[in-house]
Amino acid sequence: MSKGALALLIRGTTQNWSAERWKARFDEVCRNRPVLQLPGATFDPADVHYAAVWKPVPGELAAFPNLKVIFNLGAGVDALMADRSLPDVPLVRVAVDDLTARMTEYVVLHVLMHHRQELYLRDSQRERRWAPKHQWPAGAISVGIMGLGTLGADAAPVLRRIGFRVAGWSRGPKQLEDIECFNGGGQLDAFLRRTDILVCLLPLTQDTRHILDREVFTKLNRTSPMGAPVVINAGRGGLQNEADLLACLDDGTLGGASLDVFATEPLPPDSRFWTHPNVVLTPHNAADTDPDAISKYVARQIERFEAGEVLENAVERERGY
Amino acid sequence: MSKGALALLIRGTTQNWSAERWKARFDEVCRNRPVLQLPGATFDPADVHYAAVWKPVPGELAAFPNLKVIFNLGAGVDALMADRSLPDVPLVRVAVDDLTARMTEYVVLHVLMHHRQELYLRDSQRERRWAPKHQWPAGAISVGIMGLGTLGADAAPVLRRIGFRVAGWSRGPKQLEDIECFNGGGQLDAFLRRTDILVCLLPLTQDTRHILDREVFTKLNRTSPMGAPVVINAGRGGLQNEADLLACLDDGTLGGASLDVFATEPLPPDSRFWTHPNVVLTPHNAADTDPDAISKYVARQIERFEAGEVLENAVERERGY
Repeated sequence: MSKGALALLIRGTTQNWSAERWKARFDEVCRNRPVLQLPGATFDPADVHYAAVWKPVPGELAAFPNLKVIFNLGAGVDALMADRSLPDVPLVRVAVDDLTARMTEYVVLHVLMHHRQELYLRDSQRERRWAPKHQWPAGAISVGIMGLGTLGADAAPVLRRIGFRVAGWSRGPKQLEDIECFNGGGQLDAFLRRTDILVCLLPLTQDTRHILDREVFTKLNRTSPMGAPVVINAGRGGLQNEADLLACLDDGTLGGASLDVFATEPLPPDSRFWTHPNVVLTPHNAADTDPDAISKYVARQIERFEAGEVLENAVERERGY
Repeated sequence: MSKGALALLIRGTTQNWSAERWKARFDEVCRNRPVLQLPGATFDPADVHYAAVWKPVPGELAAFPNLKVIFNLGAGVDALMADRSLPDVPLVRVAVDDLTARMTEYVVLHVLMHHRQELYLRDSQRERRWAPKHQWPAGAISVGIMGLGTLGADAAPVLRRIGFRVAGWSRGPKQLEDIECFNGGGQLDAFLRRTDILVCLLPLTQDTRHILDREVFTKLNRTSPMGAPVVINAGRGGLQNEADLLACLDDGTLGGASLDVFATEPLPPDSRFWTHPNVVLTPHNAADTDPDAISKYVARQIERFEAGEVLENAVERERGY
């Protein structure tokens, strides 16, 4: 008897890979298992036991009566969770070391860029001004990471090793060596008050939507050695109130921002984020992941599941990640 | 009997501190020891046992018949060593944790900037182009550090932790955990051949002057995932052949450079380095050091020396650092 099929529902491209390239790759790693590229393939919907998806059309997954597991080909499942007809089967998100490592690269780079006054230095270079300014040491700066899951917990010790004071804030309590851990709504203000550089790596849920707003920005360290605090958002665009963010950059509540994600992507050409002098903008490429690593991860998880083992990184529907 | 005097010979400013501010600081940390700010102070040259210097006029130090130790208020002693009348007493360079940590910040920042294609991304932002490009992981990139003294040995493991393949090259053999170590002229080519991002932290000596030349640049990894290799010089301007560097940036032998140091500083306004599209330029501020830390370091070393202990970080005159 043939193995249950894996359906691929990949809309658009991801990681610069076409749906066709993903199909070829999954054929390699899912040996002896039918891999169906949808839409297009001719098949019996009852044969589909697994689905690997990227931005599927809402309702599309409800067509498979024997679906056992959904694999999202990225770390964030917020778009998928918005599908009210999503079948009630385990939903697994990508958590591969490759993605985690790339996010840490991004976070360390952008923390250092603001810490080392790169915006000022690039202006100086453009104006041919040899004008060194006072540079505070990393030990004078408090980085605060919102979200201490796989991503936050990986970046935190690297920042610590470079010399920053590092704290984290998460929904429930966490313990990380040498990192001051805050949790829950009751400790948010204390966490913000000590933070000069705020790094947001939260998942997007109904609790976190627009969490980065004027109220939060105003509570950041008002006596920062950097002058004004800085925000780095590499989570989801929906985490930031964009009107508040621009207003706070304009009025000096924030000294700068690195933004990888936006409410609307691609960011429209008329967005003020493109041209704001204190914004470092990247096109949602903080943590592209090697599709090879992702396809192997999915194939391995299916094997684990069929052997009766527990799925890794299954989303808790209620909390939303 | 009063303690031997410490003479301060500080020309210009260093770390944005005036000579007067250094004097006040040394008065605090060298309790009960006369601190003379020169030129200007009235004193008997025979009373001077120690000198703390920054860019002294050649010959100036020869005026003290009882000089016991010279402290250079920076890590690089190349300018001082060029003074042929330099008294033959121990010469100590600054090696404080604060300076080391700042240099690691700089090295990690600039390696990540080139690795993560920041030059391309800033251009995209300026042109309002949402245009993610393929991004290789850190594990695909070999960073090669020239100079494995205090600075190189501190930066290497941080880069390793971020995921880069890291090798080092030094004059004599060194061993560092998880870092491939090359040494001497015989292993230079093998070191260069594997290197995508070359980081130069060498001291400037007669052996290293203009070591960064076309011959070295041409030997770097010609099949780099980055397209063309990149050079980061945070050591001394004299380490680079600037005509070769510009020519290699122009003809694509090098894909980019981060330069903190130059043959002439401040860099003249008509230098092509200011405007080269592939150059990230900083005004010799990679590792400014807290004068507090330096003054304490000098005071502590004097106490150690008077207690008969060995001076730390004494320069070996023959090798030049």
